[in-house]
Amino acid sequence: MNLENIRELLEDYKNDRVTIDKVIQNLRDLPYEDLGFARIDHHRALRRGVPEVIFCQGKTLHRIIEIVRHMLVKNSVVMGTRADKNIFEEVKKIAPDAKYYDDARIFLIEREKLPQNKGVIAVVSAGTSDIPVAEEAAVTAEVFGNEVERLYDVGVAGIHRLFMNMDVLHKARVVIVVAGMEGALASVVAGLVDKPVIAVPTSVGYGASFHGLSALLTMLNSCAGGITVVNIDNGFGAGFAAHQINKLGG
Amino acid sequence: MNLENIRELLEDYKNDRVTIDKVIQNLRDLPYEDLGFARIDHHRALRRGVPEVIFCQGKTLHRIIEIVRHMLVKNSVVMGTRADKNIFEEVKKIAPDAKYYDDARIFLIEREKLPQNKGVIAVVSAGTSDIPVAEEAAVTAEVFGNEVERLYDVGVAGIHRLFMNMDVLHKARVVIVVAGMEGALASVVAGLVDKPVIAVPTSVGYGASFHGLSALLTMLNSCAGGITVVNIDNGFGAGFAAHQINKLGG
Amino acid sequence: MNLENIRELLEDYKNDRVTIDKVIQNLRDLPYEDLGFARIDHHRALRRGVPEVIFCQGKTLHRIIEIVRHMLVKNSVVMGTRADKNIFEEVKKIAPDAKYYDDARIFLIEREKLPQNKGVIAVVSAGTSDIPVAEEAAVTAEVFGNEVERLYDVGVAGIHRLFMNMDVLHKARVVIVVAGMEGALASVVAGLVDKPVIAVPTSVGYGASFHGLSALLTMLNSCAGGITVVNIDNGFGAGFAAHQINKLGG
Amino acid sequence: MNLENIRELLEDYKNDRVTIDKVIQNLRDLPYEDLGFARIDHHRALRRGVPEVIFCQGKTLHRIIEIVRHMLVKNSVVMGTRADKNIFEEVKKIAPDAKYYDDARIFLIEREKLPQNKGVIAVVSAGTSDIPVAEEAAVTAEVFGNEVERLYDVGVAGIHRLFMNMDVLHKARVVIVVAGMEGALASVVAGLVDKPVIAVPTSVGYGASFHGLSALLTMLNSCAGGITVVNIDNGFGAGFAAHQINKLGG
Amino acid sequence: MNLENIRELLEDYKNDRVTIDKVIQNLRDLPYEDLGFARIDHHRALRRGVPEVIFCQGKTLHRIIEIVRHMLVKNSVVMGTRADKNIFEEVKKIAPDAKYYDDARIFLIEREKLPQNKGVIAVVSAGTSDIPVAEEAAVTAEVFGNEVERLYDVGVAGIHRLFMNMDVLHKARVVIVVAGMEGALASVVAGLVDKPVIAVPTSVGYGASFHGLSALLTMLNSCAGGITVVNIDNGFGAGFAAHQINKLGG
Amino acid sequence: MNLENIRELLEDYKNDRVTIDKVIQNLRDLPYEDLGFARIDHHRALRRGVPEVIFCQGKTLHRIIEIVRHMLVKNSVVMGTRADKNIFEEVKKIAPDAKYYDDARIFLIEREKLPQNKGVIAVVSAGTSDIPVAEEAAVTAEVFGNEVERLYDVGVAGIHRLFMNMDVLHKARVVIVVAGMEGALASVVAGLVDKPVIAVPTSVGYGASFHGLSALLTMLNSCAGGITVVNIDNGFGAGFAAHQINKLGG
Amino acid sequence: MNLENIRELLEDYKNDRVTIDKVIQNLRDLPYEDLGFARIDHHRALRRGVPEVIFCQGKTLHRIIEIVRHMLVKNSVVMGTRADKNIFEEVKKIAPDAKYYDDARIFLIEREKLPQNKGVIAVVSAGTSDIPVAEEAAVTAEVFGNEVERLYDVGVAGIHRLFMNMDVLHKARVVIVVAGMEGALASVVAGLVDKPVIAVPTSVGYGASFHGLSALLTMLNSCAGGITVVNIDNGFGAGFAAHQINKLGG
Amino acid sequence: MNLENIRELLEDYKNDRVTIDKVIQNLRDLPYEDLGFARIDHHRALRRGVPEVIFCQGKTLHRIIEIVRHMLVKNSVVMGTRADKNIFEEVKKIAPDAKYYDDARIFLIEREKLPQNKGVIAVVSAGTSDIPVAEEAAVTAEVFGNEVERLYDVGVAGIHRLFMNMDVLHKARVVIVVAGMEGALASVVAGLVDKPVIAVPTSVGYGASFHGLSALLTMLNSCAGGITVVNIDNGFGAGFAAHQINKLGG
Repeated sequence: MNLENIRELLEDYKNDRVTIDKVIQNLRDLPYEDLGFARIDHHRALRRGVPEVIFCQGKTLHRIIEIVRHMLVKNSVVMGTRADKNIFEEVKKIAPDAKYYDDARIFLIEREKLPQNKGVIAVVSAGTSDIPVAEEAAVTAEVFGNEVERLYDVGVAGIHRLFMNMDVLHKARVVIVVAGMEGALASVVAGLVDKPVIAVPTSVGYGASFHGLSALLTMLNSCAGGITVVNIDNGFGAGFAAHQINKLGG
Repeated sequence: MNLENIRELLEDYKNDRVTIDKVIQNLRDLPYEDLGFARIDHHRALRRGVPEVIFCQGKTLHRIIEIVRHMLVKNSVVMGTRADKNIFEEVKKIAPDAKYYDDARIFLIEREKLPQNKGVIAVVSAGTSDIPVAEEAAVTAEVFGNEVERLYDVGVAGIHRLFMNMDVLHKARVVIVVAGMEGALASVVAGLVDKPVIAVPTSVGYGASFHGLSALLTMLNSCAGGITVVNIDNGFGAGFAAHQINKLGG
Repeated sequence: MNLENIRELLEDYKNDRVTIDKVIQNLRDLPYEDLGFARIDHHRALRRGVPEVIFCQGKTLHRIIEIVRHMLVKNSVVMGTRADKNIFEEVKKIAPDAKYYDDARIFLIEREKLPQNKGVIAVVSAGTSDIPVAEEAAVTAEVFGNEVERLYDVGVAGIHRLFMNMDVLHKARVVIVVAGMEGALASVVAGLVDKPVIAVPTSVGYGASFHGLSALLTMLNSCAGGITVVNIDNGFGAGFAAHQINKLGG
Repeated sequence: MNLENIRELLEDYKNDRVTIDKVIQNLRDLPYEDLGFARIDHHRALRRGVPEVIFCQGKTLHRIIEIVRHMLVKNSVVMGTRADKNIFEEVKKIAPDAKYYDDARIFLIEREKLPQNKGVIAVVSAGTSDIPVAEEAAVTAEVFGNEVERLYDVGVAGIHRLFMNMDVLHKARVVIVVAGMEGALASVVAGLVDKPVIAVPTSVGYGASFHGLSALLTMLNSCAGGITVVNIDNGFGAGFAAHQINKLGG
Repeated sequence: MNLENIRELLEDYKNDRVTIDKVIQNLRDLPYEDLGFARIDHHRALRRGVPEVIFCQGKTLHRIIEIVRHMLVKNSVVMGTRADKNIFEEVKKIAPDAKYYDDARIFLIEREKLPQNKGVIAVVSAGTSDIPVAEEAAVTAEVFGNEVERLYDVGVAGIHRLFMNMDVLHKARVVIVVAGMEGALASVVAGLVDKPVIAVPTSVGYGASFHGLSALLTMLNSCAGGITVVNIDNGFGAGFAAHQINKLGG
Repeated sequence: MNLENIRELLEDYKNDRVTIDKVIQNLRDLPYEDLGFARIDHHRALRRGVPEVIFCQGKTLHRIIEIVRHMLVKNSVVMGTRADKNIFEEVKKIAPDAKYYDDARIFLIEREKLPQNKGVIAVVSAGTSDIPVAEEAAVTAEVFGNEVERLYDVGVAGIHRLFMNMDVLHKARVVIVVAGMEGALASVVAGLVDKPVIAVPTSVGYGASFHGLSALLTMLNSCAGGITVVNIDNGFGAGFAAHQINKLGG
Repeated sequence: MNLENIRELLEDYKNDRVTIDKVIQNLRDLPYEDLGFARIDHHRALRRGVPEVIFCQGKTLHRIIEIVRHMLVKNSVVMGTRADKNIFEEVKKIAPDAKYYDDARIFLIEREKLPQNKGVIAVVSAGTSDIPVAEEAAVTAEVFGNEVERLYDVGVAGIHRLFMNMDVLHKARVVIVVAGMEGALASVVAGLVDKPVIAVPTSVGYGASFHGLSALLTMLNSCAGGITVVNIDNGFGAGFAAHQINKLGG
Repeated sequence: MNLENIRELLEDYKNDRVTIDKVIQNLRDLPYEDLGFARIDHHRALRRGVPEVIFCQGKTLHRIIEIVRHMLVKNSVVMGTRADKNIFEEVKKIAPDAKYYDDARIFLIEREKLPQNKGVIAVVSAGTSDIPVAEEAAVTAEVFGNEVERLYDVGVAGIHRLFMNMDVLHKARVVIVVAGMEGALASVVAGLVDKPVIAVPTSVGYGASFHGLSALLTMLNSCAGGITVVNIDNGFGAGFAAHQINKLGG
């Protein structure tokens, strides 16, 4: 039942085709989706312009393809994260225009461009091994309609490489910092800039890095202001959050 | 050594009052602060308009007062977080215009208003016991120059209270969600709005809440997009990050 | 030694075929199973109507088949959980009427229907990846003699889907909520219904979900009344517990 | 806006006192609480007969009294858990008929009896030190309208005490097992009965009991069917859940 | 119902004063304690010669005194562990012959000596701060009837002190090793002797000793054969286990 | 340098074939092994009668074979634990008389029987999946010269199976209890017997069993006296410790 | 821009080929690397004589080869750690003079010898399974220009082997101790020597060794003075730190 | 028995005052300390010049005073760490020349100066709250005979303060970095210098800093070469290790 249905119901009521009790009964029983338009639909409306996203890890190939097929009916942009290449191969069979980002492990079907934000999102990463997560963040932000500047391999063990590229940080509206091992880069960056910094711990490391726990704790405990943190290896989440922040800036 | 000094040095060199080797020697040795102006000073400049903040927990009363005294020389706004009332009493002795926020455990010396941002920051909290952390976030955001709307005691066990106040969420540019125990409120809020959500886990709870670990993990693992997380009980960090995001919106 | 043996013994004693000391001696020494009938056997009797269940994970194929063969002698319903398809293939060789539930990873030999309970058990799951655990719970409950209604993919990130299907929750006597990642769904459901809610954390997720720990802690710390929790991924346990509760309702 | 308001609105519309657009506008904007009656209010209605409960731990004395005062306006039964004796003393000042349960640390204002369920809930505890949590569960269940049988100090180190009192277990519809240290009692009980068992780990113990973590893990990992678990020391939660289950039995 | 009752019952039956069904009925229903004599009572009998022990931590003073009073009716040796001095003062009021061991935090009422074992139990501790736990183990073993030799302050940082006292280790039948911090002493001792070694981790230490977890893990992971471990700070458990082992040796 | 060498040295010195300084020099420099005979060699002597054991896990096949070859020169009994079948196949090439225990994953070269102890060691296990660890314990104890009685699959979920076999426990001098999941069996057994109980947690289980952590904590926190614990899955350690205890009994 | 460029710039300025503003502009804007020579370059200069090192784990083969190729342009010594043999095979294709250390999993291209330090670094390891990590430390130290003495398989379970080889410890300037399982060897060694001891916990072990956590905690909690610790399995880090210390000694 | 005793024994033997068996007997039985001179005494000798140190935490006041009294007999320098002021007051009663370092919580009785090393040890700390631990390290190093330079409050959130004081780092032979919260400072420092860096995590912080665990993991996982780590808050350990390293440099 949608707005039109409600209007019809009210008209029927006015024209004595339904009783007042029937109207109230209908209003009580109509599914949340319909009644709740003031909230949920508005909410969905706000979301228009955002692609449908499938988190592929832990889903069977069969189910992923089914979901993609379903989404393609109503959506012009569908993307899949944590997608192995063989998932992409199957997706291509039903969407030959699909693209694949190797490092980011993302497949993308993009039948129209989403609206573009103005500002730049900087994606900074500490080491070569953090690149897959950094790319997941960067590609996500790009697909959602943001310009991205990448600044990779600038970890604190060679901090001068960061200082040589301060312009990238200065240009950005939001900075995503991706780091594993000790994750100290996020603190250093947040100490140097005066803008929102989203920290992404990665599971890169060994021994007492405990699959990213070390970097996660480092980032949560950063004494530099303005840092917020997403889950270990959650490049997508960082890209999405950065997009929402960047959008604010017009 | 500042810009003026460098200019003088270069003029001395041109006028043969110093040798080229001496100039190079000087350039090599000048302190980072001077040479680094393009970066560090600019950085500091950007920070102007932000109050000096003292994290009081773990510092002796003596040291806090010393720091406050030092800061008051150059700053018009000084605030202290995690400040017991007796710290405030001492602060008042050297700054009789200091104010104290009971719930937030913040003292504030505010000799001029900081520039105000336009948007609204919503601070949403799950339970009565989360209020101190929520207030730390709210007061921080207000002191930094933001309008704040509070929406307290709307935890998921009585989720209709949240739905009845959706307008607060709709009005805000950024939403801070403060929750202990299971921390599920952040996911629910992020599922309803389309804007940056900063989640603050609190150490409220008992048993297997492990002093906020449960809420922290819940928030990090949220499947709703756009959530980022700060440290357990870190209301200040959330307020600061929300300020930086809100500022972007002009 | 069973009831009949005891009766014979007593008669022998009455007829002076054994001494009183011999009787007492026998009573002392008879195996617990026989003497303990008032408890253990009664207990077993109560259990009649419940299938024999094999937890296959960590058992060799050889042992599983041996156990199945042994159970089939006295039982009309034998089921195996955490059973890979190749286990099922072997089971089928000795029980060609065995069925296999792919998602639930359960094999079932059901030679007569167990007694049916009246009420409905709702199985609610948050995401597509939680389905295997949800199905383990659902199939278990069904095999034990309960009607099950499934409500899948209604996680808090799209909470309106849950609200649109409140009737499933209203109809049920017991609700099983299956969720990984942040596991917030259990709290939301328990906040909406007034009946027993059994929460099953799943190991779905990544990073700081720590193989289900995050969802487990969330559920244990739920501030909504009436939630109880089973082990991570323990769909079987949830299905069993829900059956025991539903049975109470007649 | 309530049902009557909606009826009036519709009549106004029929009588041309408001336009159809105005009606739709009103429907869209009416607060969730009003529109949502089909769900939330119904839900609240279901909850009628349940006392209002205040979790006192972590709340200031001032706030607790304020909440009690507020609740007493509309409710005939108000109870407070985790309430120190001095909280009770203050409560008594505004509700002289308040009672206090020492072991359970519960205060109770009970101005009319809630409806009584028929079955019995057994509360079994392992050691003397577990009694406060056991009593929190038992008193909660009693206040909610259930008959409770207590069976204390029957831990597995002296398992014969449990066997000597099997009748208590046999009589009950639901069994709550409260145990700290290694928490093995829950498994033993669940192995002996064929009914829902709610396990409550307690923080009793020392060393590697890690404030109840040991008992919690034991209970979650129980290989006996039908066990579900609540948070460490959460006697209230167990009592509440047991009430919901017992209610099912008519 | 005891052995005599059963004998009477059987005689009544033989003399036709009761029916065979009545006898069987009685046998089924007699409490476990009576029927179970072959096991539980025997078990209790085996235990004769062991004092009654009260773990005082977490129990109210009132309850402890009540238990002591109750125990003193039937027992000649009652001891309390984790007993503060003020508990002892209260105990002395009802048992003026009670003794107190300061370091061990044990009170003892010993109205007859328990049977003595022949061998020696060595209690070895690493540092001065481990003495309370070591003394709990030593006093426990002594009260249970064993000769104890103490060898304190021989941690691995000064390993020569251990080597200078090898005779203590050689003389003992069982060795208890008490160590906090890194707990390495247990491994070293077990590498030097060829007899059972019971390791007791203590919560002595700081930082990443995590209240004894470090020592616990060290001891569990010892590559030296024959080590078994008890809970952190569990001197009583070690003393008890050592007693049971020593008893074996006649 | 052995005792004989020292005697010769002293005689040479007496006969002026070496100087006193040379003697002292020799004494200072002689390898610990030689000087330390009073301790280390004696220690080794005590160890005679114990087989050489190789922990194969984590060692390359090549190194294992090399060690076996080396050991066989001086030892009549060599055993390897955590040995895959393919390790055994290689061992057989250099020791065709080697035997392999499938469940225990032990290979054994036994060229003479070690001296036999008199008592019996009971090995009790909770579930079918715990058998490999139980067998590692049992075979180890047997190889070291002990009679072993096995009592498998008697977990607390069907506790009557344990009670029916109490004679096995009564006969034993030492009891090894092997259990995964919740590990409650160790407490139950220790509550029933009055002899040393060695508990072995296994990594059997899933979800919040955390690879044996749950069972480990349960066992460490057992409130039943006389339990000591070895590392997760450490059947060998339990068998070795039980041997050392059993040996004490003559 | 390097020193020469700056000199030219200054000369151009003196000769009026550029204005003073232009010079200052250039100085402000020149990349940190150039301006920062007083620090970073000096720092790099100090580092001269240290090989370039690639941590191969988690990097794709393709990227490793690319990095090696890049490094070989300017460096005479390139080494790769955590390098599987197949990585080495690929490296050999572009650098046929590459060597491979099997145990250490290091490949090395060494086109000139680095300057040699005078002192000896001892690498001590507890068990056979610790050798790969010990070798990573040893080979690293050797490549960096240090003499290394290896003392392997001297764990505390057979502590006399350590005492027999005290001369190795006495000869060394720095001692690296590599141990898994309980990691006690580091404490024992540090208790015997009076020089810097670097402890390397290894992930060797099982059960509650938790992949090296046990050994790590042991080493951090060592009560012997002078121990410092590196990450689990971090042989490279230990070798590098030992080199830096040894270098101090001239 | 010392070297002289052995010489006498040998002479007695040569002069037939004792038999050869008596000599061997004596050699076997002489306490390790005497025989072990080649090792332990030499070791102790090496240690000469190092003060005796008492770790006061967890020791009773009574025991500390007893130890101090005992040490003062043979030692000219005695220091106590983790000493509250009231411990110092008691120490002063038996050693009126004792000094107290407030921040470091160290008392010192220094009756002669220990030999001085040549190099400088830098102690760098991140925040004001880290000063107690930093001072424990600094005072320890000074008492052991090293010159110390302090560089406090240079955390990464204001990294320019570090860069402005690079000369302190350049001057030092060893750098101790003390940091809590996220602990990133150690990585940054190690990336800038080419000398041994000892990292001390502190328990400063809140929430997910978990009493220093966060800083500890950060430091262990540092990707900068040459860092080694001591226990949380272990300023003494860092000072001692730095002394041992500095001593190497002559």
